[in-house]
Amino acid sequence: MFQVRTDLALEAREKFEEDNVEIKGVRLDEEQATPDIHISSVVIETENGAKAMGKPKGNYVTLEAPNMIEEDDGYHREISLQLSKVLKRLLPKGSDFTTLVVGLGNRAVTPDSLGPRVVDNLCVTRHIIQEFGRYVIGDSCHKSVSSIVPGVMAQTGMESMEIVRGITKETGPDVIIAVDALAARSTKRLNRTIQITDTGINPGSGVGNHRHALNSESIGIPVIAIGIPTVVDAATIVIDTMSSLLDAMSQAEQLRRISSSYEQLDLMEKYELVRELLSPQLNTMYVTTKDVDDAVKRLSFTVSEGINIALQEEEKEQ
Amino acid sequence: MFQVRTDLALEAREKFEEDNVEIKGVRLDEEQATPDIHISSVVIETENGAKAMGKPKGNYVTLEAPNMIEEDDGYHREISLQLSKVLKRLLPKGSDFTTLVVGLGNRAVTPDSLGPRVVDNLCVTRHIIQEFGRYVIGDSCHKSVSSIVPGVMAQTGMESMEIVRGITKETGPDVIIAVDALAARSTKRLNRTIQITDTGINPGSGVGNHRHALNSESIGIPVIAIGIPTVVDAATIVIDTMSSLLDAMSQAEQLRRISSSYEQLDLMEKYELVRELLSPQLNTMYVTTKDVDDAVKRLSFTVSEGINIALQEEEKEQ
Amino acid sequence: MFQVRTDLALEAREKFEEDNVEIKGVRLDEEQATPDIHISSVVIETENGAKAMGKPKGNYVTLEAPNMIEEDDGYHREISLQLSKVLKRLLPKGSDFTTLVVGLGNRAVTPDSLGPRVVDNLCVTRHIIQEFGRYVIGDSCHKSVSSIVPGVMAQTGMESMEIVRGITKETGPDVIIAVDALAARSTKRLNRTIQITDTGINPGSGVGNHRHALNSESIGIPVIAIGIPTVVDAATIVIDTMSSLLDAMSQAEQLRRISSSYEQLDLMEKYELVRELLSPQLNTMYVTTKDVDDAVKRLSFTVSEGINIALQEEEKEQ
Amino acid sequence: MFQVRTDLALEAREKFEEDNVEIKGVRLDEEQATPDIHISSVVIETENGAKAMGKPKGNYVTLEAPNMIEEDDGYHREISLQLSKVLKRLLPKGSDFTTLVVGLGNRAVTPDSLGPRVVDNLCVTRHIIQEFGRYVIGDSCHKSVSSIVPGVMAQTGMESMEIVRGITKETGPDVIIAVDALAARSTKRLNRTIQITDTGINPGSGVGNHRHALNSESIGIPVIAIGIPTVVDAATIVIDTMSSLLDAMSQAEQLRRISSSYEQLDLMEKYELVRELLSPQLNTMYVTTKDVDDAVKRLSFTVSEGINIALQEEEKEQ
Repeated sequence: MFQVRTDLALEAREKFEEDNVEIKGVRLDEEQATPDIHISSVVIETENGAKAMGKPKGNYVTLEAPNMIEEDDGYHREISLQLSKVLKRLLPKGSDFTTLVVGLGNRAVTPDSLGPRVVDNLCVTRHIIQEFGRYVIGDSCHKSVSSIVPGVMAQTGMESMEIVRGITKETGPDVIIAVDALAARSTKRLNRTIQITDTGINPGSGVGNHRHALNSESIGIPVIAIGIPTVVDAATIVIDTMSSLLDAMSQAEQLRRISSSYEQLDLMEKYELVRELLSPQLNTMYVTTKDVDDAVKRLSFTVSEGINIALQEEEKEQ
Repeated sequence: MFQVRTDLALEAREKFEEDNVEIKGVRLDEEQATPDIHISSVVIETENGAKAMGKPKGNYVTLEAPNMIEEDDGYHREISLQLSKVLKRLLPKGSDFTTLVVGLGNRAVTPDSLGPRVVDNLCVTRHIIQEFGRYVIGDSCHKSVSSIVPGVMAQTGMESMEIVRGITKETGPDVIIAVDALAARSTKRLNRTIQITDTGINPGSGVGNHRHALNSESIGIPVIAIGIPTVVDAATIVIDTMSSLLDAMSQAEQLRRISSSYEQLDLMEKYELVRELLSPQLNTMYVTTKDVDDAVKRLSFTVSEGINIALQEEEKEQ
Repeated sequence: MFQVRTDLALEAREKFEEDNVEIKGVRLDEEQATPDIHISSVVIETENGAKAMGKPKGNYVTLEAPNMIEEDDGYHREISLQLSKVLKRLLPKGSDFTTLVVGLGNRAVTPDSLGPRVVDNLCVTRHIIQEFGRYVIGDSCHKSVSSIVPGVMAQTGMESMEIVRGITKETGPDVIIAVDALAARSTKRLNRTIQITDTGINPGSGVGNHRHALNSESIGIPVIAIGIPTVVDAATIVIDTMSSLLDAMSQAEQLRRISSSYEQLDLMEKYELVRELLSPQLNTMYVTTKDVDDAVKRLSFTVSEGINIALQEEEKEQ
Repeated sequence: MFQVRTDLALEAREKFEEDNVEIKGVRLDEEQATPDIHISSVVIETENGAKAMGKPKGNYVTLEAPNMIEEDDGYHREISLQLSKVLKRLLPKGSDFTTLVVGLGNRAVTPDSLGPRVVDNLCVTRHIIQEFGRYVIGDSCHKSVSSIVPGVMAQTGMESMEIVRGITKETGPDVIIAVDALAARSTKRLNRTIQITDTGINPGSGVGNHRHALNSESIGIPVIAIGIPTVVDAATIVIDTMSSLLDAMSQAEQLRRISSSYEQLDLMEKYELVRELLSPQLNTMYVTTKDVDDAVKRLSFTVSEGINIALQEEEKEQ
């Protein structure tokens, strides 16, 4: 079946809502964390749920803040704080675990540069702790943090997964936080949604469409993924507008005849129709916003601050 | 009327061909310059032609080379050579004119970074000639070349036109070459077409949608524009696919009933329909290719070499 | 006479202090603004003072903060605040003047990239105010701000002064703030000193050694310059160490004989000696710190925040 | 003993020449490859030679070309060709080995960005060969090439060696080519010398002063290092000028008395003297040329072309 692509579990879940289908094994919780920040939690509990959603079992937390891309002197510290709280729930307990942060994506392509840019602003401590011990940094709770920007396969000739697995075996972190730009289904979510999941990065996800999983199975340690949708697949845009067309058809007086006969096609036939029409070139294209440079610059600060707080300021926060 | 946007005169011309409409005042010449390079020349000769085409009177030369984005050690010197020949036809005669090259667009947004990147690789000589005279450089025909990357309005608070006009009045070049990334109508032209025109840059063109003209009227000296399409407007993609849908409808057995009634709408009604359906957000979005970083990097070398040859190697070439 | 180069008026003044020379027409005031921030004010009041100091008449305020380059979540907002206070003293009075901020220097050379990077983080408003009026932004006192990164002569073929003068005539700002990386005499001042002056940028100053002045005389409107030393001339390093050598010589038992005879040379002879020994290549070299990338990144935030506060938050601050 | 730092074996060798000392176990061959390119070969054959030179046993080939930094349309293909010939001598024989190219250094610090920039222009093939087989690329002899830019410890918290060793174990290349910016002793060698060695990268070398070796011992496979000096240690500049001072002293009539008594100090005493005088800050500083951005940009093309030719065009070249 033709699958409209989304990396957001929340959007995958919504599709079923639209169709009034209930999915067994998938739980949804919602919370208004602050007046401006909405947090949704999708838990895929069973293999059946995973199959229905097209995503692996695990926790998917989504942080929505409509004003996330607006200018703000403090780079939206309130969002960083909420992000750090979600992260702490998914990170190992205790204060002595070591973390490798992986900035996935292509620095040279603006909407795909989120991961590398987050790493640029990270507070990295592993080398200092290795040389001077953990109490030299000044606070009582500093954790060892290292980071890597593996680059993309067209540049390195290697899968990100291979690079991260090699470095993980060599340097032995306890947990990985992988940051990546995502593809959303709806243009309305671009640049204003953060998804945090303990299922890692899975094939086909991200702007660059990873071919191999980066998760606890492939790497051998827990992998928490943080993603922000910065693009929509070109195909998605077309399908969405066509749906609107057909909706409109069924309402407009003059178009009723058309749509009624179109409606006689079943879902399968509609998807087949669209798939045939989509130019094969569209598969190598994406849609992004004109101000994506500004958005990615701001968001990368918000995310790196969230990670910094989660890993370095535990005592102060609690 | 809803206008599908294209910065390419060639595409504007093709639209009429499709409709079998002849346009008075518009002349088209074609030439196969080399086995791999096709050159088309659209000349808009009258105000009527300009109105029909939605573009000002003047010369529009298009260089098409399907292999333009493929890897090549010499950065496609054969294309640079053809580009330099077209440029020389439009540039002032003689060897003593001075040129200001303007790299339009936003360096931080990959598909819009063509102009700034072309300027990076340019052979700039004005300051050397001003200090040491024109015969010091070693060759007999070196022309004075200066360059500027004005940035985009969101960064500078000024129109590119204002910046270029101010610098032109102050430094007195004889001609401007403005380089910009363009929007095409068809994804098939992305990254493999160069348009050279003596009409400058006009409102609404370029990836960044200039609001003020950069042409001989606004600046006071001739402005030659070099553009390569690197994006397609998101709206264009949708309209194209819907056209395919309707074409298919009229052929597919099962869909004939729908399309026949749709066909009863006239062109105006179809456009109105589509315009209403297009999300307002789509206006701030564009579609680009996933390998746009590589494409822009390569193309910027090809274009800057073309300009360098046109301005610095005249005697050798002829 | 051989002149050891410094762009800091404070250092030029100190040279005389060392020699116990009093300079007529030069006034020095000091103030401890906060426990961590020291502010010195050098006022060159007469042409004689200007000649002695090797700098034009005017105000030179120096902000010294030893911890300026240390990591800080808020990018040292306390320093930005002090900077904004100094700026407001030098800027025109009232709330309706318009400002052009000029980011001088070469973005591709790390220690010279301060100016372009400051402009990246600036709050630019001119285009919004021109389109929607000044009261649309939300606050009651927003001033029109535009910005330009002119690039360096090797890239543009033009003097920064020519570019700025052309843009100034075209767009009519009331005042210019020019930001540039400076050369200090002492390595101890690198990355921890901000100089603000109403004398603009003068020939020979900056990392890139400007050849033409950017001041009220050349541009026609007041030019306030903000500079941070990020390099030391290579020659300076050598001369400093040799001075230390000679000092040590006069103390060490074993060396007394050498130094005493060296001391018989007068200052002129010493300088001549050093000048002859300095490789001509040294003139094209500079000394910088290994962490200059981090320092420039942080400092550019501090400076742009200072400018943003000075130009946009007047009412709130007072 | 105070060691003036150089990463170039040729310079280490020259020091002994100056002192007319012959070193056992070190062999020097010279060759004028083309009128403009001089190739020197230093072979350290014994442990004694290694000790004397302060460098491990192995081959050090130096390619000197005075015009290397001058502008050239073809990015000095003649130098790339000579570099590829030297590389082929040190690379494994046969056409079926796999290579990992490592771009060492800090992309954000201009003179240290050589390694990352070389990797940007590399022809990477491993992923294509893994997916489609080695004969799909079009030529008969394409070798598998992968690449990585590990970043610097301040960014990653990890030693480059750890990252490279992990990736090597995971992806199994047969040989590593590591590219790095070096520190020279003489400013005259900056940007115009390429050193190729089969001893890898060793502690204290490179602009960033690596702390761990990246060689066949630490990584487990042969490591060929390509380096170009882009900086001189600040201390070196001072010592060199002081040597010139003392030379001049012994010649100048007026200074003879000083230098003769200085000469009575032995070498040890002189070094001690200088070491004491050198500011501790100087250890964190380096000297570089003002046009280092242009130099590194050009040189990175020359080096990546040399690697591309050595790894991809074997049959054609011979």
